Amino acid sequence: MKPNRMEAFSDGVLAIIITIMVLEFKVPEGHDWHSLIALGPKILSYIFSFVYVGIYWNNHHHLLHMIRTMNGRLMWLNLILLFWLSFVPFTTAWMGESHFAPAPIALYGIILLLSATSYWLLQLAIISQHSSDSAFVTSMGNDLKVKISPFLYLLAILTAYVSPWLSGFFYVLVAVIWVVPEKRIEHILRNQ
Amino acid sequence: MKPNRMEAFSDGVLAIIITIMVLEFKVPEGHDWHSLIALGPKILSYIFSFVYVGIYWNNHHHLLHMIRTMNGRLMWLNLILLFWLSFVPFTTAWMGESHFAPAPIALYGIILLLSATSYWLLQLAIISQHSSDSAFVTSMGNDLKVKISPFLYLLAILTAYVSPWLSGFFYVLVAVIWVVPEKRIEHILRNQ
Amino acid sequence: MKPNRMEAFSDGVLAIIITIMVLEFKVPEGHDWHSLIALGPKILSYIFSFVYVGIYWNNHHHLLHMIRTMNGRLMWLNLILLFWLSFVPFTTAWMGESHFAPAPIALYGIILLLSATSYWLLQLAIISQHSSDSAFVTSMGNDLKVKISPFLYLLAILTAYVSPWLSGFFYVLVAVIWVVPEKRIEHILRNQ
Amino acid sequence: MKPNRMEAFSDGVLAIIITIMVLEFKVPEGHDWHSLIALGPKILSYIFSFVYVGIYWNNHHHLLHMIRTMNGRLMWLNLILLFWLSFVPFTTAWMGESHFAPAPIALYGIILLLSATSYWLLQLAIISQHSSDSAFVTSMGNDLKVKISPFLYLLAILTAYVSPWLSGFFYVLVAVIWVVPEKRIEHILRNQ
Repeated sequence: MKPNRMEAFSDGVLAIIITIMVLEFKVPEGHDWHSLIALGPKILSYIFSFVYVGIYWNNHHHLLHMIRTMNGRLMWLNLILLFWLSFVPFTTAWMGESHFAPAPIALYGIILLLSATSYWLLQLAIISQHSSDSAFVTSMGNDLKVKISPFLYLLAILTAYVSPWLSGFFYVLVAVIWVVPEKRIEHILRNQ
Repeated sequence: MKPNRMEAFSDGVLAIIITIMVLEFKVPEGHDWHSLIALGPKILSYIFSFVYVGIYWNNHHHLLHMIRTMNGRLMWLNLILLFWLSFVPFTTAWMGESHFAPAPIALYGIILLLSATSYWLLQLAIISQHSSDSAFVTSMGNDLKVKISPFLYLLAILTAYVSPWLSGFFYVLVAVIWVVPEKRIEHILRNQ
Repeated sequence: MKPNRMEAFSDGVLAIIITIMVLEFKVPEGHDWHSLIALGPKILSYIFSFVYVGIYWNNHHHLLHMIRTMNGRLMWLNLILLFWLSFVPFTTAWMGESHFAPAPIALYGIILLLSATSYWLLQLAIISQHSSDSAFVTSMGNDLKVKISPFLYLLAILTAYVSPWLSGFFYVLVAVIWVVPEKRIEHILRNQ
Repeated sequence: MKPNRMEAFSDGVLAIIITIMVLEFKVPEGHDWHSLIALGPKILSYIFSFVYVGIYWNNHHHLLHMIRTMNGRLMWLNLILLFWLSFVPFTTAWMGESHFAPAPIALYGIILLLSATSYWLLQLAIISQHSSDSAFVTSMGNDLKVKISPFLYLLAILTAYVSPWLSGFFYVLVAVIWVVPEKRIEHILRNQ
């Protein structure tokens, strides 16, 4: 039994999550450039989520390569991750529709925090399949961004009530530190 | 001819079924936490279906690994299973929208009962490809949860008119006994 | 270059086509069984299309296994087939919504006729990769149902204006003669 | 690490992009042929986009076969391409809805231009993995259509304000020169 099907299923769900967000861009009534302005916040909101789902897909890709034996526990941890990510289109739409009101911005962070926690649990379960002194486990243990991200999400959630700009800054910050793919895993895989 | 493509197609359909349920979460008019309350029953309904579709995906994954030779009959039995599961998003939405009224709860059970029956027919067809004394057939013959689930669905359907809580209890019960993956099949596969 | 990716892409499109038809089942206003009655024609219409798309997926599966060398021509012939099949959800919805009015029934047949023609062109292109005395080509040349189907679709289109029942009879007839998978191709593959 | 999963994910996104465009064909109120007329511009618009996405899928298929080593950079370049292509359903719908008004036609070209630029950047990154005198790089360097397409898109964007027919002519022209698959890459692959 191999993780291929879990990978394929996850890819399917992530591909659909990314693409159904586009369904939120309702065709404007007008036929001029001016009528596109109302879509501005929705598109900005979509860019954030596209990058976040892209980050998840990318890192998920790396992580699943480290699975040694598939079991029901990994499958359910993966499904829980997909469950939280499946709320991204809804909260993205709400954030855009509300022109970045505090509650939608905070909910966005809560969903991302829950997704990050699920990802972290999945990672822990995969790490437990490796000996504690393996290169993979060592690199994961030093993984600063996994440790920092939850705090940045919390800051983004709390500052949503102060200023959407400040909150947005923290969301951008998490994205930036994650866009760089997990060089260390790549490195290990290359040296295998 | 291998079951790969049937697996890939099923995964595609299941991934879409799970994800289009999210389209039911319409963006609320308001921009505060209060306006999310109306989504409560829909989200609860979604959690049920997410778990059920997850269970199907998970067990389907195990079952298809036991196929020896693909044929048209297996393909159609699989399509019939996907047909009934394709009604899950509709009945999930109706159940949530109606705040768990009796008819939607009962319909939910009917769809799950028809899906379970289709799954059971598919399993029978795959079992018939193995000798009756194989470990796979023996383990399937002892599969108590396959035998109990239809009765629990029937109880859930009937008690929908007594109390949504009682009915819900039976749905939770089926989910709980299924979330544990088919350890025996895993065991057999590992010993092959 | 192998036909795998064309298969995967086609499976994706067919899985989505089958599943988005379900989005047409709008959640009824009422919460009793009575409010489901209005969905009757839509569900009947969906059953037809589910079976037809299932037939295409099934036979497509068999056909693509006979490809010897992939090329741009096969890709475009396949895309043309997917193009016509992509209209199935629309015409299915119109047929159901209109309670089987003549024009929607006829359009349904036109789309199926165009899909069948595209499938036939794809099959011709694949046949041309085999020597004319191969078992595959011989079996295809004798393929009565490929030759009969267009006439049955034409009859269904024309009789749509006489009686929806008569037209429906021809649609059922085509489905029945196709549900049986291409035994001959299966046979050839098994003997390879 | 292989490009398979990137291919699968891209195929998923492209399959969904192509298929959700069909959701724009709202079922007409009427039940006669006359009521289909209003769909005319939308269907014409869909045909354009179906062909364009088909072209991307087709050429993407060829291009990804030339990847030597997967890395994060290729993944993100690919995601950027998918990001721009994900706007195709929206701009297709707007173009059809507006009966080919200047702004929607121009936006359509802008999205295609941005997609083409992303594709070109992805191609450059893949080319950089090959030695400059390889058959693949030489053939790409001579690739006239990659160089001409942006100019044709620009012409289509600018002439959108002159005449939809003139603009449409340039869109058709780009499609025509691209529908022929990359014979040279096919040729190289065959000689490997």
